[in-house]
Amino acid sequence: MTTRADGRADDELRPIKITRKWLDHPAGSVLVEFGRTRVLCAASASTGVPRWRKGSGLGWVTAEYAMLPASTNTRSDRESVKGRIGGRTHEISRLIGRSLRAVIDYEALGENTIQLDCDVLQADGGTRTAAITGAYVALADACAHLGVQAALTGSVAAVSVGIIDGVPRLDLPYEEDVRAETDMNIVMTGTGSFIEVQGTAEGAPFDRAELDALLGLGEKGCADLTRLQAEALANG
Amino acid sequence: MTTRADGRADDELRPIKITRKWLDHPAGSVLVEFGRTRVLCAASASTGVPRWRKGSGLGWVTAEYAMLPASTNTRSDRESVKGRIGGRTHEISRLIGRSLRAVIDYEALGENTIQLDCDVLQADGGTRTAAITGAYVALADACAHLGVQAALTGSVAAVSVGIIDGVPRLDLPYEEDVRAETDMNIVMTGTGSFIEVQGTAEGAPFDRAELDALLGLGEKGCADLTRLQAEALANG
Amino acid sequence: MTTRADGRADDELRPIKITRKWLDHPAGSVLVEFGRTRVLCAASASTGVPRWRKGSGLGWVTAEYAMLPASTNTRSDRESVKGRIGGRTHEISRLIGRSLRAVIDYEALGENTIQLDCDVLQADGGTRTAAITGAYVALADACAHLGVQAALTGSVAAVSVGIIDGVPRLDLPYEEDVRAETDMNIVMTGTGSFIEVQGTAEGAPFDRAELDALLGLGEKGCADLTRLQAEALANG
Amino acid sequence: MTTRADGRADDELRPIKITRKWLDHPAGSVLVEFGRTRVLCAASASTGVPRWRKGSGLGWVTAEYAMLPASTNTRSDRESVKGRIGGRTHEISRLIGRSLRAVIDYEALGENTIQLDCDVLQADGGTRTAAITGAYVALADACAHLGVQAALTGSVAAVSVGIIDGVPRLDLPYEEDVRAETDMNIVMTGTGSFIEVQGTAEGAPFDRAELDALLGLGEKGCADLTRLQAEALANG
Amino acid sequence: MTTRADGRADDELRPIKITRKWLDHPAGSVLVEFGRTRVLCAASASTGVPRWRKGSGLGWVTAEYAMLPASTNTRSDRESVKGRIGGRTHEISRLIGRSLRAVIDYEALGENTIQLDCDVLQADGGTRTAAITGAYVALADACAHLGVQAALTGSVAAVSVGIIDGVPRLDLPYEEDVRAETDMNIVMTGTGSFIEVQGTAEGAPFDRAELDALLGLGEKGCADLTRLQAEALANG
Amino acid sequence: MTTRADGRADDELRPIKITRKWLDHPAGSVLVEFGRTRVLCAASASTGVPRWRKGSGLGWVTAEYAMLPASTNTRSDRESVKGRIGGRTHEISRLIGRSLRAVIDYEALGENTIQLDCDVLQADGGTRTAAITGAYVALADACAHLGVQAALTGSVAAVSVGIIDGVPRLDLPYEEDVRAETDMNIVMTGTGSFIEVQGTAEGAPFDRAELDALLGLGEKGCADLTRLQAEALANG
Repeated sequence: MTTRADGRADDELRPIKITRKWLDHPAGSVLVEFGRTRVLCAASASTGVPRWRKGSGLGWVTAEYAMLPASTNTRSDRESVKGRIGGRTHEISRLIGRSLRAVIDYEALGENTIQLDCDVLQADGGTRTAAITGAYVALADACAHLGVQAALTGSVAAVSVGIIDGVPRLDLPYEEDVRAETDMNIVMTGTGSFIEVQGTAEGAPFDRAELDALLGLGEKGCADLTRLQAEALANG
Repeated sequence: MTTRADGRADDELRPIKITRKWLDHPAGSVLVEFGRTRVLCAASASTGVPRWRKGSGLGWVTAEYAMLPASTNTRSDRESVKGRIGGRTHEISRLIGRSLRAVIDYEALGENTIQLDCDVLQADGGTRTAAITGAYVALADACAHLGVQAALTGSVAAVSVGIIDGVPRLDLPYEEDVRAETDMNIVMTGTGSFIEVQGTAEGAPFDRAELDALLGLGEKGCADLTRLQAEALANG
Repeated sequence: MTTRADGRADDELRPIKITRKWLDHPAGSVLVEFGRTRVLCAASASTGVPRWRKGSGLGWVTAEYAMLPASTNTRSDRESVKGRIGGRTHEISRLIGRSLRAVIDYEALGENTIQLDCDVLQADGGTRTAAITGAYVALADACAHLGVQAALTGSVAAVSVGIIDGVPRLDLPYEEDVRAETDMNIVMTGTGSFIEVQGTAEGAPFDRAELDALLGLGEKGCADLTRLQAEALANG
Repeated sequence: MTTRADGRADDELRPIKITRKWLDHPAGSVLVEFGRTRVLCAASASTGVPRWRKGSGLGWVTAEYAMLPASTNTRSDRESVKGRIGGRTHEISRLIGRSLRAVIDYEALGENTIQLDCDVLQADGGTRTAAITGAYVALADACAHLGVQAALTGSVAAVSVGIIDGVPRLDLPYEEDVRAETDMNIVMTGTGSFIEVQGTAEGAPFDRAELDALLGLGEKGCADLTRLQAEALANG
Repeated sequence: MTTRADGRADDELRPIKITRKWLDHPAGSVLVEFGRTRVLCAASASTGVPRWRKGSGLGWVTAEYAMLPASTNTRSDRESVKGRIGGRTHEISRLIGRSLRAVIDYEALGENTIQLDCDVLQADGGTRTAAITGAYVALADACAHLGVQAALTGSVAAVSVGIIDGVPRLDLPYEEDVRAETDMNIVMTGTGSFIEVQGTAEGAPFDRAELDALLGLGEKGCADLTRLQAEALANG
Repeated sequence: MTTRADGRADDELRPIKITRKWLDHPAGSVLVEFGRTRVLCAASASTGVPRWRKGSGLGWVTAEYAMLPASTNTRSDRESVKGRIGGRTHEISRLIGRSLRAVIDYEALGENTIQLDCDVLQADGGTRTAAITGAYVALADACAHLGVQAALTGSVAAVSVGIIDGVPRLDLPYEEDVRAETDMNIVMTGTGSFIEVQGTAEGAPFDRAELDALLGLGEKGCADLTRLQAEALANG
């Protein structure tokens, strides 16, 4: 059996750390760490909703994802300087927004907007899944801050899984991610339903058995993260 | 049992039409129709590769997707006029490129680039899956035109599946797509392996059994499309 | 006497084909073909007018022109990807809009907007004149669809003329266009008045006699096109 | 007979003033005035040509046109601030470039580039024709400065003509321009050949007789401007 | 003692020329010259204020700075063509706006906006200080034109100072500017108070004594400019 | 005597914290805190220099500044989403770059580039001065990492000063900054020379005595910061 470079079991998460209230200004804020991956998730609340939703009585939740230039192995150019947002950034921002909206009751939220900002301070694989996992906690704090806890109909966690050297593994760091034949991101509710499943054959296409193995690992990882989120929220 | 508005069985594709050589200039071109969805797929071949790949002896395949303004129910603004490409367009362009690259042998392609352009002339749901399915045929023609048939290691087809009113269904037209609780796009090789699986809970999260049912439908649909692609390519 | 590569007489149009109702969604749509040049013209109607015209009781007509990347001999980059619209595109969009507005009675149109989209699917010279000629037919269908036929005060057709090897010729394909010493686009009403005349010396400047010959050819070509438009509109 | 607000005959130019060497830095520079219209034309010479022309032994001439914000009746927004160049600006820049290139012998110019900048300091109609007329003089000075007078194969002048209240008139100020039923810009060589003819029906379409009258006026105006350019260049 | 290339004393301004009413359209306009530096300053007045200030009863003053491409030694690219405004341009536009707002009584101005446009026609060092000095005069004319002279609570002038070869000098032309070890721009009111002080060590850092010497020179230069502004405004 | 809201003396810095090696990837990285202001400064080293400097044997240092959306009291829009960088951001990025380049010996650096990224995680006034102060420490670590300590010819620190309610004060938090009549940023070397002085009258213009008082406070503050930087660098 191959062992992982960091000594983890194949179905084991990296050390997860969820630090709430990391910032003073936004309604909710979390520094989430999946091993060396570090994402700052802020949930800014404001009264009112986008124009197309005014007068509906319904709220809105949206998200933006970005990476700091020095967060990556080799410095990445700033998208503000390039003057355009790349496809990957767009994709992940949309994924985070969709994932969190899946547990929002817009009516209970009322005509308020919660804007999530997930900024990657340090990247070591799994930044989008860390972002979703942390953003949920920031969102919960923001709902509490607004006094609309009922707007949250459940919790959300996300994790990456992949096949490396033929072995399905949970929560890939960068070093495994680049070598993965297949790479999948799984977003689930705290009660074990799927919100989003995105699997990509980076190398060879994968068969149904491999797909099933990855889904199983993802279910395990999301259940673990759900527990850690609950613990973080239970502490004050 | 609910019946579909167009009278199809739940696991039945819409009428599929693949018209090759629809354009005179590019090396391969296909007008693909999934019911009323109509996508023009062009494969333009050029010698040389992007700078970062020069001297490697390897080729490159890339794709761009776009919708004509009048292709949609209500006219959409032109992205060239807005001055920026939206997240959805980026996402789909990247998906098409990845899907086709999964069956390319870069070495056999040599230092040539094939650029796929998938322009939606009329949209009625499933434009990205129609684009992938048609683009594969255009790509095959372009490889033949270049005399590098060996660069194709397999075929690719894609189809959408979803759960509408609790029932899993294959190949959703727009009218079903907007009502779907869960929406999934599946990209597969002609030999039945997965290249990409993207499932999203638009309404309620979905459980594992529903996910399995959708995967089964997708496998069926991709197999049907693979056969139709082969027939189209067999006709000279 | 030189003969043309395609065997036409100097004052003869290429085979013209006007296919109405090519799309399901917009109020009017036409696939127009001038030989191998193929332009898809859609006329989308919407209630309301731009802000600067609100409350005036007057309607508005505007146009956008674009080329698909694979429409040209060698693939052209997408303007949405470049993030800016080129001067040529701007120029032609403005020309099409002005040409059609010349036969519109804004009062009869009422506070409605008709947006014309002319997308070149295949380019072989004369794309702007084909676009105007086809757009008029789509516009007529859109006015009928809105029940405001009175908004059309006449018809519009356009054709290119040029001097090739010293000989004035009508309706230039790409191969003649690139060799033309002088190139002129003529837009006329169905009753033989001029809406727009744009002549450019690509090689040697032209004298008044040459200019007069070109104007005569243009009058002949526009009259022929006017007849073909009327026939197309007469059929159903 | 209607008289013009400024007392001119219908075929009379406004007072024309051509001031050479208005700037210290560029190889040629001219402040040209057509009545109250004031355009600063600079011709900057540099060794080398754009990449696509390198090694050809041929030179290049290009032009950019712009209006200062306060040049117009009501202040116009700056295109640099809007972040994009409008269609009208593009159109005029291209027209100026084409017009001047019509009298350039690229071989005699050698691998040098002359960049013309035509900046409208004050606008009162006819800015594009003033720009072309002034730019020619700046270009002539730049060719002399480079010691390549042979690169100029002729001279270029331009003037606007139009039909106001049914009367064809030469060199329209803003007040006439906005009332013109038909508006035409004519660019000619010093020897009386046409380089560019652009006529537009702003109101009613125009017939062939009106078109002929406008062309005649344009020929007269360009001949007058040619004489004034020659006088300016003769002085020092 | 080193002498300056143009023979001036170290604390002497270049020849200053302030020409009012250089343009016909804007409420105030000035061509200001500091030696060979020539800046056209226009003050356009309009009723109304930006949205965020509506209903406040207060006016607004803002400024934009730009350089014509041929104003510099070597031609500079147009920012409208590049599609983005550079940092230097932004910085100077903001500086001019702040400087003039320092002498504006918004209440006396009422809900009017004055937009200053400072366009450098020819650059030879000190363009931003010439712009501020000229813009003040254009602003004064615009206030008079609006009949709100009371909106001006004082006058503003600006000058550059620097240390060249160890010697503090006033009003640097380009040739001195590029050689300056330290470069400072000073903006003052007519009564000798500071509005803005911006000093930069281009070469070696500067000590407090040098800083004091530069401030003294700046006070002297601004006093001289204040006198010249008053003279210009006194002449009708 | 007025006391400050946070109880500090008028010439006292906020609690300063300099945490080195906060990130794993870049050659140097510092989390710097001035009270509640928190800036992450990363110094990424790479071999090679920008094109215009190649072959010179000289290195290059450049900087970019940005604020996270949730760093401010009320969320700010992301500049990458707006598609353009604002004037303030440009200004500060340029200031940081100039300040650090003042202590760099390009020859000792060799043909290497150090890119500083200063990202404000939380803003409470003085973000640009905190950024400069922290960036210097990150730069020192990056030079050590490259083995070119000799490339640093000195140290740099920066602090804000201002006049609040008539009293000159050091190191303004946001609450004081918005109330300041005059606001000044001072950048100095460790040996007490000035690199940059930027003073702005936000309210009433300031006289020479006030300017002198502010300069004195700035000298004091920079000396204190220099000591704290040295301590941070001495530890490991």
